[in-house]
Amino acid sequence: MPPETKGQRTRSRIVEQAAAVFNQRGYEGTSMQDVMDATGLKKGGLYRHFSSKEQLAGEAFRYAWTEAMAGRTRDLDAIPGALPRLRHMIERFVTMRGPVPGGCPLMNMAIEADDGNPALRALAHEALREWQGRIVAIVRDGIAAKEIARSVNPRRLANRIIATLEGALMISRLERSREALADAQDNLSAELDAIATPRQ
Amino acid sequence: MPPETKGQRTRSRIVEQAAAVFNQRGYEGTSMQDVMDATGLKKGGLYRHFSSKEQLAGEAFRYAWTEAMAGRTRDLDAIPGALPRLRHMIERFVTMRGPVPGGCPLMNMAIEADDGNPALRALAHEALREWQGRIVAIVRDGIAAKEIARSVNPRRLANRIIATLEGALMISRLERSREALADAQDNLSAELDAIATPRQ
Repeated sequence: MPPETKGQRTRSRIVEQAAAVFNQRGYEGTSMQDVMDATGLKKGGLYRHFSSKEQLAGEAFRYAWTEAMAGRTRDLDAIPGALPRLRHMIERFVTMRGPVPGGCPLMNMAIEADDGNPALRALAHEALREWQGRIVAIVRDGIAAKEIARSVNPRRLANRIIATLEGALMISRLERSREALADAQDNLSAELDAIATPRQ
Repeated sequence: MPPETKGQRTRSRIVEQAAAVFNQRGYEGTSMQDVMDATGLKKGGLYRHFSSKEQLAGEAFRYAWTEAMAGRTRDLDAIPGALPRLRHMIERFVTMRGPVPGGCPLMNMAIEADDGNPALRALAHEALREWQGRIVAIVRDGIAAKEIARSVNPRRLANRIIATLEGALMISRLERSREALADAQDNLSAELDAIATPRQ
């Protein structure tokens, strides 16, 4: 790859700094003035790189989501076995502090855009599909390896894990307590125990 | 109660109509102009009843939440037994169309206000506590009546139900499909089967 130009570096920095603002305040709650304040750039400087707030918000979301997924799946490939991988992903979700402040970018965008901006809604839907796909692939591997019972429906289990974690995160953030997240981890852990193929 | 005055009726109508706008577009995404458009009132007419957008948004949220809870708990007292009551509440959440459009008012407000407006955040937290309290009371009754196993922690079960439903609602709204909600109902139903005290 050719070295990044100064313009590219500035662009990346804007996306990164804007992501923290958008993820905390939401798309509607963030003005271009807020982004100017966060980046120290003037309006002309921003619009040199992004044609609209929507475009910047979309890129900021993609950045925040990529960071969140990287955190949740860190070291995943080094772990042998489907069930330990699922447990690891759950543990990472529950214990890690989000790399971009403001909670889960997927949930934030999903809730704000489900009745709103179609382009941002599509990005949230794509992020959901990506996460579902990651989990479904692990579950299928586990079934193929006779580690997970064949009766398990991968898509259902993926939705089960995602719904439980996201709902618990909502409660935890409102209560400013890790309790609901820790409970969710215990519950999902028991559920994973129950779908393991009995050892021969 | 004395009959409602014309002013009170107007006030109630504003709250009701504003609730649909706020619940779909969010607090930040809703302007007083949007509320004027929805109610057909002029700015002076709105500010005669509400001193600020925040005050109106708070009352609109309380209205939307009261309606949502009324829908989820409708006919609940007529149902004998704690487990059938929990199943009924879950079924209502999964199958009913929200009385105020835009999804669950609690989740919408929780996600928007968790890093934002403290007054609205407090209202969301209060709504969460109210819902937790309703479920905890039913679970305690069930334990006292030896219908639910004594080992069950009522608060944990309440969070489990709320997190699963809210997370599944997020997925369902993004996918525009009832699938995730139906799966959540199946999962919770199996969980309630598992905590029933075995019949003597």
